[in-house]
Amino acid sequence: MTAPESSAPRLRGRPRSPATDAAIIEAALRLLEEGASLGGLSIEGIAREAGVGKATVYRRWPGKEALMLDVLRSLEEPSPEPAGVSVRDDLVTILEFMRRRGLAKRNSALLRSVITQMHAHKELWRAYDENVIAARRACLRAVLRRGRESGEIRADVDLELLADLFTGPMLTRAMLHEWRELPDGLAERIVDTVLEGVSPRR
Amino acid sequence: MTAPESSAPRLRGRPRSPATDAAIIEAALRLLEEGASLGGLSIEGIAREAGVGKATVYRRWPGKEALMLDVLRSLEEPSPEPAGVSVRDDLVTILEFMRRRGLAKRNSALLRSVITQMHAHKELWRAYDENVIAARRACLRAVLRRGRESGEIRADVDLELLADLFTGPMLTRAMLHEWRELPDGLAERIVDTVLEGVSPRR
Repeated sequence: MTAPESSAPRLRGRPRSPATDAAIIEAALRLLEEGASLGGLSIEGIAREAGVGKATVYRRWPGKEALMLDVLRSLEEPSPEPAGVSVRDDLVTILEFMRRRGLAKRNSALLRSVITQMHAHKELWRAYDENVIAARRACLRAVLRRGRESGEIRADVDLELLADLFTGPMLTRAMLHEWRELPDGLAERIVDTVLEGVSPRR
Repeated sequence: MTAPESSAPRLRGRPRSPATDAAIIEAALRLLEEGASLGGLSIEGIAREAGVGKATVYRRWPGKEALMLDVLRSLEEPSPEPAGVSVRDDLVTILEFMRRRGLAKRNSALLRSVITQMHAHKELWRAYDENVIAARRACLRAVLRRGRESGEIRADVDLELLADLFTGPMLTRAMLHEWRELPDGLAERIVDTVLEGVSPRR
């Protein structure tokens, strides 16, 4: 038996027992691995596979979308925390994470299938964007702002464009052109070349 | 009646009458607009819609993939021919084409549906890549090589990386992050900032 409901603040999706959480997430992953589609998965089916009641799942996640976000998070490396010393190095850390994520997607049929399906589910995609990607975007923006303040980055280029210049080349290779290589050192090369520019310095 | 088969060299997909070609392509577009899927379209169905015999279609296109490529081409602006004077201006021409293509995809439900479906059809996607995209890639590479020879671009950055640095930021906005704006002047800003670099010039 778990502690009585009323003793804990009512937070949506707050975990009660990490072991039960993990069992539920693993049950969802097992179903996906066996070929279930994201659309076809139900809280009921996941609860059955995990050997728990539906109420146990709903105590942890308000609905399928929230649960699926945690399922997806369980497949991904956690986003890195930039060290906050050199802006150049922090940008490399962020791009290296994108490179590794691209490699992971190529190497895992499950991750690939879940990401592809998620793009087709508008609600899930929005939830993922608002919960996972938004935090990464905020982290990148903070690094770029710091770079402008420290003088490592020119002050006359807007933040949106800056973000695209650094991440666009990596995103294109990792997510759009999946037949392209993602070699070691690519993050460093992109960051250094964007910082330096490709026309000869006078 | 068309001219006897034997009088013309047997070229695959060689057009015999532009009006019949156009009628067949328009028939395919009509079916797609009415909600037919790429997978569901057949040469037979397209011929029927166009009011011609199957053999008339096959005299022009060896199969559905080749016909679909021309259907897609009919929806897109032709790729631009760079003027060949300044490498900077040629890069702007290429990126501006990408920007307009991104806008077109956003503004046409038909184009959007066809492109999305094409991504899901491996064979068709490969054919499109080999026939349409490859020519654009070759054009970009030729401009970049010219830039290295003329000294407008540093010689120590490899061509693959150069191509990604210029096109990645635009591709990310136009194709991957479809909620982002594609304002006038974006092509120029990307090209100039990548050429110049984002760290302050000493």
